[in-house]
Amino acid sequence: MRIPRAISDLTNQFERLPGIGPKTAQRLTFYLLHVPQNVLDEFSKAVAELKRGTVQCSVCQNVAEVDPCPICADSGRDDSVLMVVEHPLDVFVVERAGVFGGVYHVLHGLISPLENIGPDELFIKELLERLKNDKIREIVLGLNPTMEGEATALYLKNKINELRAMNHELKITRLGQGMPTGGDIQYADESTLKQAMEGRRGY
Amino acid sequence: MRIPRAISDLTNQFERLPGIGPKTAQRLTFYLLHVPQNVLDEFSKAVAELKRGTVQCSVCQNVAEVDPCPICADSGRDDSVLMVVEHPLDVFVVERAGVFGGVYHVLHGLISPLENIGPDELFIKELLERLKNDKIREIVLGLNPTMEGEATALYLKNKINELRAMNHELKITRLGQGMPTGGDIQYADESTLKQAMEGRRGY
Repeated sequence: MRIPRAISDLTNQFERLPGIGPKTAQRLTFYLLHVPQNVLDEFSKAVAELKRGTVQCSVCQNVAEVDPCPICADSGRDDSVLMVVEHPLDVFVVERAGVFGGVYHVLHGLISPLENIGPDELFIKELLERLKNDKIREIVLGLNPTMEGEATALYLKNKINELRAMNHELKITRLGQGMPTGGDIQYADESTLKQAMEGRRGY
Repeated sequence: MRIPRAISDLTNQFERLPGIGPKTAQRLTFYLLHVPQNVLDEFSKAVAELKRGTVQCSVCQNVAEVDPCPICADSGRDDSVLMVVEHPLDVFVVERAGVFGGVYHVLHGLISPLENIGPDELFIKELLERLKNDKIREIVLGLNPTMEGEATALYLKNKINELRAMNHELKITRLGQGMPTGGDIQYADESTLKQAMEGRRGY
């Protein structure tokens, strides 16, 4: 029995998304078969307009509606502290937590030899250019504690050290590692426990 | 910080889908920001065309590209056995398994007082009309073993019994219940074990 083309087309599109397997893709497609056409039209439009409705900020490379983005344009932010992150989503998450008042730089990826992504594929050149500005005193590396995150952090550290000749005050930090809130020591891996020990603080 | 409208629009659309929470919706949207526009256009088109590219078969109510659908039009199928299912997806799954050579009837839902879905909201009238045809000797109730599935099965059984006056040969069966292949008795619930005991067979 042949599945109607319109159904397999949409199933294939869903399957391309991260974390969506063939069964979920099928379930989503058949669910949408029962939805009114105007809802499908809205969904369709939101997909098509996603990138047309956004620009990349020429300063921090984050996605936004205007260039420069509201964060870069906000004179109330502390532009002496710059956090380097992988994705635009990371910026939204850090902002939602309300734990950082500085500015950002989005790399749009991490160095990954396995996926053939080198420093030139990321917005590292633009970052180094920004660091030539004397104002910046601290760079917070907000990169995931994964192999790719470590490789990128190390690469950036070396590059930034070269810049120190020009800007002696520049400090590099990384987000603290250890037990996540609500985590269970019983299930923590060795690396997390090692980081938690090394990062222990007076209490 | 305000999330760009184009991003929140698509995130909201994803969140409407079953099994997709706010975090997954966000992750999918930000993933699509890195995808070329022509891929977004294809995705957008597949969503908009989903229902335009399908019709509902006037015989079995399944979704198809033509009416009657290929199964109803196939003279090689045994049209003396009719399986009643909830969703079009159920038809595809049973067909893929290759375990049934008869014809189908899709109800497009189950009786559910909690969700205010009664017999009139489903394609039950059409089913009873089909059963007036003498050819049909067996009805397989291929409905989920859930509360809604049970309620619908019971309702259909009563309605079909009324028809027996006209068609004495009509038999009603239900899909067997018990342990699923690969299942673990340790984790089976009491109702499944009860069904498995009652459905035990000579070996």
